[in-house]
Amino acid sequence: MFPLAVSLGDPAGVGPEIVAKAWAARHHRALPPFFAVGDARSVSRVWDGPVATIRDVREAATVFVDALPILGVQDAGEIVPGVPDTEGARCALQSLEMAVGLVREGAARALVTGPVSKSQLYAIGFTYPGQTEFVAERCGVSRDNAVMMLAGPDLRVVPMTTHVPLADVPGLLTIELIVAKARATVRGLQRNFGIEQPRLVLAGLNPHAGEGGAIGREEIDVMEPALALLRAEGIDIGGPFSADTLFHPRARARYDAALCAYHDQALVPIKTLFFDDGVNMTLGLPIVRTSPDHGTAFAIAGQDCAHPGAMIAAIAMAGEAAERRAQQPA
Amino acid sequence: MFPLAVSLGDPAGVGPEIVAKAWAARHHRALPPFFAVGDARSVSRVWDGPVATIRDVREAATVFVDALPILGVQDAGEIVPGVPDTEGARCALQSLEMAVGLVREGAARALVTGPVSKSQLYAIGFTYPGQTEFVAERCGVSRDNAVMMLAGPDLRVVPMTTHVPLADVPGLLTIELIVAKARATVRGLQRNFGIEQPRLVLAGLNPHAGEGGAIGREEIDVMEPALALLRAEGIDIGGPFSADTLFHPRARARYDAALCAYHDQALVPIKTLFFDDGVNMTLGLPIVRTSPDHGTAFAIAGQDCAHPGAMIAAIAMAGEAAERRAQQPA
Repeated sequence: MFPLAVSLGDPAGVGPEIVAKAWAARHHRALPPFFAVGDARSVSRVWDGPVATIRDVREAATVFVDALPILGVQDAGEIVPGVPDTEGARCALQSLEMAVGLVREGAARALVTGPVSKSQLYAIGFTYPGQTEFVAERCGVSRDNAVMMLAGPDLRVVPMTTHVPLADVPGLLTIELIVAKARATVRGLQRNFGIEQPRLVLAGLNPHAGEGGAIGREEIDVMEPALALLRAEGIDIGGPFSADTLFHPRARARYDAALCAYHDQALVPIKTLFFDDGVNMTLGLPIVRTSPDHGTAFAIAGQDCAHPGAMIAAIAMAGEAAERRAQQPA
Repeated sequence: MFPLAVSLGDPAGVGPEIVAKAWAARHHRALPPFFAVGDARSVSRVWDGPVATIRDVREAATVFVDALPILGVQDAGEIVPGVPDTEGARCALQSLEMAVGLVREGAARALVTGPVSKSQLYAIGFTYPGQTEFVAERCGVSRDNAVMMLAGPDLRVVPMTTHVPLADVPGLLTIELIVAKARATVRGLQRNFGIEQPRLVLAGLNPHAGEGGAIGREEIDVMEPALALLRAEGIDIGGPFSADTLFHPRARARYDAALCAYHDQALVPIKTLFFDDGVNMTLGLPIVRTSPDHGTAFAIAGQDCAHPGAMIAAIAMAGEAAERRAQQPA
């Protein structure tokens, strides 16, 4: 069984620490074998456990039993936890590039990406909004067809728009966008989670989902036509529902994923409920890709207090999804 | 000690049932004496417990020991749980009017309002957006100065805009609005909760609170100037913070109330966490007013399955707030 590839992310962030802590929890959490990709010094700088530099991915599974296997990339220069620089960003980008490549060529089963600093990446000429779009392009997938899904133990949400000003959201919500996101979500839940007939819900844009047009018309003009198209395809999707009553425990039990109109509508419930173990999974790719749903947390890097829960959950979810995909007809 | 006045709300909704169940829980939950205002038949129709019609509020405290005291209003006509009509709406409005009046004149200590049907009220000529604005006017307070706060056991949120289309929110957020809402929140937390120096936080409008202007400028152009004004007055207010990281348990512990830019930003976290016991409290009034943070729930009315948690919490919170106010200098 091939191991998973885990990029360490920014060497000055919490990535190296949480990957190391995930390795330490491998038995307890029954994690599949994985190897890290990055500068081994970024790990040994913040962690006393056993690290083994590997030169070939095929060594990883054997090494994994006794040490965290790390496939090295270029030297990250001087590493100071909490103090990012452009050399670190180059190292993070090379780690990501190498990890994606290994998964694409089949040498690793799935991709888990550690947190990076976007501003440092931009400073070295990175032109993608984030790692997701970079990974999508390396997989030959248009960034519009790569769908971000956030997942906690009993909630999955898909923000249909992401890092755009709130004022732009109503104009960006189109029938085409909703249909495309819903289809990709259905396919992703089938492939990665083995849910044959996924139950989706759509959150309204406006308070009380517009109250029949009294508080905004996007539900009537855009969402209802999109839902009609999706239902005609046999997709099980309810809504548009008032977002505020969609995320309490009894409501969550009624669906497999909620499509949300904008960033905070999706991220507020998932991070309110699962701040320490939320996973970001990209749907619509030929490979499995997850990441912990948090950033570099430079403020606490190097203090041995970073919570590895989200990284552990990201590795576990990637492993399970890769296993399900391997059992499916190509 | 004067009792609390609890309007039963729409006689065909869950109001009568949850008020009766709250009375039944009076010992267990140590609730202060209260009396209901409405058509007694709406209670006996859905509940087998003891009900006592009173003609004078002064009877309430004595009666409360053995029965739910109900101060009658006009006959609601034929009451069918789950089937609202205009006669019921007239009864609900009269109950509200009478309950507000009794609290205003000091015959009752605080006001708790049961859920009403806005569409039925509109049908009989009610011209207020909701009960809050009606109560504010009866108290001689401009509706702009009445602030809606939603409260759960360890979270309080104030939506600075409420039932407006999401597209209108960016234009409605002004420095004046934020300053007014923050001041009213501080005063309300001091008066109703006895918090001398309340700690407030302000949620950003845009994803990641705009990321320094990269994802929207409202944080820089509107929120920062408002915060500067508030801080100059000695108000302890942090932000603007990314909304998605503001509501997990460790974050909630750092403030007394969060000011939110729009309805769902405030209502999603509170209802996700406290769906069954959220309380709506109106700040900025000369009286204490709370209500359960849910609607008439016509779909489950009369089936003895309505959860009284929010009504119980609303009564308890109103009683505590009234007691704190009574101890303050006038």
